[in-house]
Amino acid sequence: MRVITLLSDFGQESFYPAAMKGVILELCPEARIVDITHAVPEHDIVAGGYALYATYRDFPPGTIHVCVVDPGVGGQRSIVAVEMLGYVFLAPDNGLLSFLLKSNTPDRIFAVANSEFWADNVSPTFHGRDVFAHVAAHLANGVSIEQVGPKAKSLVRLDISSARPSDSGVVGEVVSVDRFGNLVTNVRADMLPASEADRAEVAIRLSGRTISGIHRTYADVGLGDLVAYVGSAGLLEIGRNRGSARDVLGAGIGHSVKLTFGT
Amino acid sequence: MRVITLLSDFGQESFYPAAMKGVILELCPEARIVDITHAVPEHDIVAGGYALYATYRDFPPGTIHVCVVDPGVGGQRSIVAVEMLGYVFLAPDNGLLSFLLKSNTPDRIFAVANSEFWADNVSPTFHGRDVFAHVAAHLANGVSIEQVGPKAKSLVRLDISSARPSDSGVVGEVVSVDRFGNLVTNVRADMLPASEADRAEVAIRLSGRTISGIHRTYADVGLGDLVAYVGSAGLLEIGRNRGSARDVLGAGIGHSVKLTFGT
Amino acid sequence: MRVITLLSDFGQESFYPAAMKGVILELCPEARIVDITHAVPEHDIVAGGYALYATYRDFPPGTIHVCVVDPGVGGQRSIVAVEMLGYVFLAPDNGLLSFLLKSNTPDRIFAVANSEFWADNVSPTFHGRDVFAHVAAHLANGVSIEQVGPKAKSLVRLDISSARPSDSGVVGEVVSVDRFGNLVTNVRADMLPASEADRAEVAIRLSGRTISGIHRTYADVGLGDLVAYVGSAGLLEIGRNRGSARDVLGAGIGHSVKLTFGT
Repeated sequence: MRVITLLSDFGQESFYPAAMKGVILELCPEARIVDITHAVPEHDIVAGGYALYATYRDFPPGTIHVCVVDPGVGGQRSIVAVEMLGYVFLAPDNGLLSFLLKSNTPDRIFAVANSEFWADNVSPTFHGRDVFAHVAAHLANGVSIEQVGPKAKSLVRLDISSARPSDSGVVGEVVSVDRFGNLVTNVRADMLPASEADRAEVAIRLSGRTISGIHRTYADVGLGDLVAYVGSAGLLEIGRNRGSARDVLGAGIGHSVKLTFGT
Repeated sequence: MRVITLLSDFGQESFYPAAMKGVILELCPEARIVDITHAVPEHDIVAGGYALYATYRDFPPGTIHVCVVDPGVGGQRSIVAVEMLGYVFLAPDNGLLSFLLKSNTPDRIFAVANSEFWADNVSPTFHGRDVFAHVAAHLANGVSIEQVGPKAKSLVRLDISSARPSDSGVVGEVVSVDRFGNLVTNVRADMLPASEADRAEVAIRLSGRTISGIHRTYADVGLGDLVAYVGSAGLLEIGRNRGSARDVLGAGIGHSVKLTFGT
Repeated sequence: MRVITLLSDFGQESFYPAAMKGVILELCPEARIVDITHAVPEHDIVAGGYALYATYRDFPPGTIHVCVVDPGVGGQRSIVAVEMLGYVFLAPDNGLLSFLLKSNTPDRIFAVANSEFWADNVSPTFHGRDVFAHVAAHLANGVSIEQVGPKAKSLVRLDISSARPSDSGVVGEVVSVDRFGNLVTNVRADMLPASEADRAEVAIRLSGRTISGIHRTYADVGLGDLVAYVGSAGLLEIGRNRGSARDVLGAGIGHSVKLTFGT
């Protein structure tokens, strides 16, 4: 039994993901299929990459992560199968894996070129169904990753800004906002002071407001107050106890955040 | 094989439910996971409780219902495992089960306190993944409910208004509205006259309009007409044949409904 | 193991599909359930029929397609079980299968009348749960289609306009629009010139604009340009490279499209 995840920008209401599932279940009836999300904004490779980054590690080793945010479908871009961190990632080679590649190195990369594992008639506008789903099902059936095509050397990487140390702390930015209005930044937990005491001394500046200290969770501050904490993806987040930090701060993706450590 | 359902306010587009599924499938590969809904309005414990109430009984005995509408995550509230009606309910002890508790009594209640069955590192803001999903998977694997923690005595109950008999019939209110604009009330079928003839004599008053008689289904009245009927959750509903009662009546959750029985 | 698909107009946020899944898993624990979509607009039989048409064939032979767009639920309309193309379709007999019936003939049609396979107490407003889900699970368990009820002779068909040959080419219309703004027409690939060279000579007129030639995929034209191509359902589509044809053309469902073939 293998788990196959699906992530796309097809839209949560779309029936395209169902077509992919039909194909997978025909080829590999025992596959377990999980939707990560299909609500990635159209063609938004960065947002899709973040959704993958935030969830891939929660799946069992061997899971095949199928990632289809693919504005160049049917054109010159290639499709890659990447072995990394005990998983296989199937994705267009358009930068969708950039978030993952910031802190990880692929074990092996293959170009998905062997049409033996594709649909007989490939729709040039729906590789999600006719290439990705087919290849994922064959991998789940035991086809080895070497068989999907020749080795590839490198992957397209988007110029995603990283958080970076500054004289007084760290400078980063907001990379995602969830439904509750929590602002997820690109500041990793390992860039923060290690001790709870030192974390309490950090000042976080965002959208003209300063938030004092890094706490554990929402309930550590008063009702309606802003709160900084390390979120479930291991990244610094700014939230609000029983409210929306997004609404209060007017901040969104790309807004800068500056951390000043205590001395 | 055990069924695990997931209900949350994470949002239908969120990837947080996928993280919970990844955890469950790693620990219990043969679990069958069903989303009840993730579109409960943020922090809306009453709406979440109603969604659970309307669906829990349609699942096989032994199903583990995982309910995460949890504004106090990481704070002082406890998490409970409740054995009731042949099911296990995992929920924050914040009143989420209040609808169920109106007409049912738990067999046993346990505090989810034994961290042996949690993630090694629990994110204080995502107990859905690191506590709920882990415990649900262990229960599905055969861990007995006594092992999740000590017995608890009582549960938080919200002051949800019940329908109540009046001099001339029943007084209740709207508790849910579905996509079609059908208004679900808190008037249970057993509070209505038993016979079809007597039900035909009931007058239902809502938003300044009076609807005559309780029918079987939409098609029992003319096109576009309002119709009262016992809905699929065993509660009185007000709908409209091929239209939306919500739109016509301007009524929503909390609006009162008065039933006058015939004499 | 049998695959059961669910398609409805309950809304993507609704918990009604979960109730259907609970019923199916109780009766047939090993069924594999796939949502096609639940975002069909309320009571929109044509849109539901198109979603089914676009996806049914991607599922394994023997799949049971459960289709619940059913404004007449509980009234006089019957429910049918249709054997066609190696699948079973369960649907209200209200025209929901019309798209499929344009180019296919049922092998056998049965009226779903044998209440032995229904819930003990059928809610007159939720046949999706109490009739459809029950019957689907029984069929998945090996109950033969003859057992669900007596043979029926004909099916309700909606007067869905077909594309038709004209003096100079083909006249059709838009039948669906996806999230990306791609306009799907009712012009089937077999109504187009067979050769790539002849397809390059086709002029497509829609919303006052003329698009030249039928291409393979978006990337065959310049960024932001309109492009005609045969889409993944085997129908002519009008899209836009990295953009929305809907937004540029102001076109939607029902808009006419005229193809003039080269000479």
